[in-house]
Amino acid sequence: MMTLDSFRSARNVLAGVILETNLIHSPAFSSACGNNVYLKPENMQVTGAYKIRGAYYKISTLSDAEKQRGLITASAGNHAQGVAYAAQRAGVRATVVMPTTTPMLKVNNTQGYGAEVILHGSTFDDAAAHATALAEEKGMTYIAPFNDLTVATGQGTIAYEIFRNLPDVDVILVPIGGGGLAAGVSTLAKQLNPHVKVIGVEPSGAASMKASLAAGHVVTVDPISTIADGVAVKTPGDLVFPYVRDNIDDILTIDDDELVDAFLDMAETHKMIVENAGLLTIAALAHLDCKDQNVVSILSGGNMDVITMSSLIQHGLLHRGRIFTFTVLLPDRPGELLRIAEILAKENGNIIKLEHNQFVNINRQSGVELTVTLEAFGLVHKRAILEALGKAGYRVHEVQTAGFYS
Amino acid sequence: MMTLDSFRSARNVLAGVILETNLIHSPAFSSACGNNVYLKPENMQVTGAYKIRGAYYKISTLSDAEKQRGLITASAGNHAQGVAYAAQRAGVRATVVMPTTTPMLKVNNTQGYGAEVILHGSTFDDAAAHATALAEEKGMTYIAPFNDLTVATGQGTIAYEIFRNLPDVDVILVPIGGGGLAAGVSTLAKQLNPHVKVIGVEPSGAASMKASLAAGHVVTVDPISTIADGVAVKTPGDLVFPYVRDNIDDILTIDDDELVDAFLDMAETHKMIVENAGLLTIAALAHLDCKDQNVVSILSGGNMDVITMSSLIQHGLLHRGRIFTFTVLLPDRPGELLRIAEILAKENGNIIKLEHNQFVNINRQSGVELTVTLEAFGLVHKRAILEALGKAGYRVHEVQTAGFYS
Repeated sequence: MMTLDSFRSARNVLAGVILETNLIHSPAFSSACGNNVYLKPENMQVTGAYKIRGAYYKISTLSDAEKQRGLITASAGNHAQGVAYAAQRAGVRATVVMPTTTPMLKVNNTQGYGAEVILHGSTFDDAAAHATALAEEKGMTYIAPFNDLTVATGQGTIAYEIFRNLPDVDVILVPIGGGGLAAGVSTLAKQLNPHVKVIGVEPSGAASMKASLAAGHVVTVDPISTIADGVAVKTPGDLVFPYVRDNIDDILTIDDDELVDAFLDMAETHKMIVENAGLLTIAALAHLDCKDQNVVSILSGGNMDVITMSSLIQHGLLHRGRIFTFTVLLPDRPGELLRIAEILAKENGNIIKLEHNQFVNINRQSGVELTVTLEAFGLVHKRAILEALGKAGYRVHEVQTAGFYS
Repeated sequence: MMTLDSFRSARNVLAGVILETNLIHSPAFSSACGNNVYLKPENMQVTGAYKIRGAYYKISTLSDAEKQRGLITASAGNHAQGVAYAAQRAGVRATVVMPTTTPMLKVNNTQGYGAEVILHGSTFDDAAAHATALAEEKGMTYIAPFNDLTVATGQGTIAYEIFRNLPDVDVILVPIGGGGLAAGVSTLAKQLNPHVKVIGVEPSGAASMKASLAAGHVVTVDPISTIADGVAVKTPGDLVFPYVRDNIDDILTIDDDELVDAFLDMAETHKMIVENAGLLTIAALAHLDCKDQNVVSILSGGNMDVITMSSLIQHGLLHRGRIFTFTVLLPDRPGELLRIAEILAKENGNIIKLEHNQFVNINRQSGVELTVTLEAFGLVHKRAILEALGKAGYRVHEVQTAGFYS
């Protein structure tokens, strides 16, 4: 049972271990959605995500015998680092099973916190099956990532800190993957003030909690597809489900495109890196049907691989018209490139990449295909550039590209 | 004169206007350099940089007559936004002259804070000359970006906050451009505790303060070259120079490559975007000759264009061996691509881009040039992949590229 007493106990255990992240007021997001928006930056938390709260509190409740048998868990992400760090602080041996596809950096981080890493299987489910089998075989203590009421209680301590910073909070937005964070935060929040609204946010492509709530019991959504890897969960936890059902007021779902926009907004406005799962509650602001309320968006973590970051930024630039690619067919004769260059210079379009290909056509009137990648100030500027080329008589064809890679 | 009284007055004026950014302890940077490192995150400041401190305080000291004549300044960056925001809060009209090359987003931000923007000239110096001419012609009040003791006093209030968070600070690292921030911070810090060391940090390619200190008077360094645009100053301010000379203990210089590394470290470890000028004090940590000291790195700002961010990340990935490109000549016959693909798969190299070009050679034994861009885990992995290809008999040539653009 998650009771007020257990939340108090978790808060006391975590004091001095975790960072009590302070709310950040966001004038930009506030004016965009017509509410007073505050960010709970768990991306700045020790290990880069809220997961350490549940992991550390769970370990603190284990008996000496359970600890001495060693801890084991499975995770490709934030839970791995949370358990590894918490076990190291508690002086307990930890083993983390990660899929073989886990980026080497995350493996290194987890090992850096002193955990033994076993690479096994190609998906999280394979790794988790191996971890539970090992736990049984060797008598180790399994630390579940979300389907555990003690773990969820640790995550819920976030609600204490929200109320301490903002006693008159009206709405809390919380990302939902397996449901541990949502169960903990919503249960404590409702106990502190039954009038506060707690809204869960899931990716549209992995809305397994929404489906479960509609069915009245836990169901599996398969296949799932989302760039928010931290909440890509096919089956929510059955132990935490009743708490989510009783305490979450509503569920919003978010598309991948909205997360890309939210990433750029966050980087530009608040100079922070937030991982996709953590951006769900930012993208959700545009879907709120309230005004002038005190709204808290929980940013669950910031552990994003730099290569992912790079590709996200590139998608965002394309999406905002800051970068675009077009092809144009030119007569195969001297001076044609000059004409195009003049138009682009006049329109203030900055050439990033240009390919001049003579082999596309045997008709010398349209014998050269020019492929141009341009930097523009945004969608309006992009349209102006394409129109100027059109007016000069060129047939321009915009190329949909996935980024600079192509 | 910058006196303790003037700093106190600035602190009182700024209370409630600026954000008192709290120091962030950095376990990762601490263990990397053997000191206790704290970050002063002025990238999280209102307008994204410390500049609002000096601008707002300066405006507060103007007479009603001076304010009514209207304010004018020149800047392509943080000072523009600081003055625009401060003027708007103070209810004063402001004009900002920006070079015509200023990214549209910065123009929009400055206009968004209510300032009138005049685009003039192609460099900051052109814009500044136009602004001072306009100030004289129209009797407007010029707000200098750094060479003004009142502005520098406002910037110096950062030192109060550092001492309040960390009374036993030993070393403060401060970026130097024109010298306003360095003059203010070092002068107040030495008054609060004469034993604290204040070290200035400049880009190697624009070390005009270092040159000036060596000469004993302000000198001009021309040309300058650095990616740290916020501190790309040819001539330090002569009014602030004596304060820097008397209160700064040492100057360190930093290369562009070090800033690229620092950007990735900051994003990965602290989930924060810091602009290049603000990263000088992070790169400087590796150059400190002290151990076990309490060191504060002032992160001066976070206003980095997303396109710059993208290109910086790409450089960083190349620099760390996370991305690399090589060419290899293959015999022009079926099955050759398969052999290469097998080697890459075995070595766990992830193909990002591949170009197969048949037109490089008339010798069919080496008739095809394959250009491959790979993702690797780092320099060790990259070397292993290249060696595996070499052992299989391929002559591999690594291509130095500036990024994915090429």
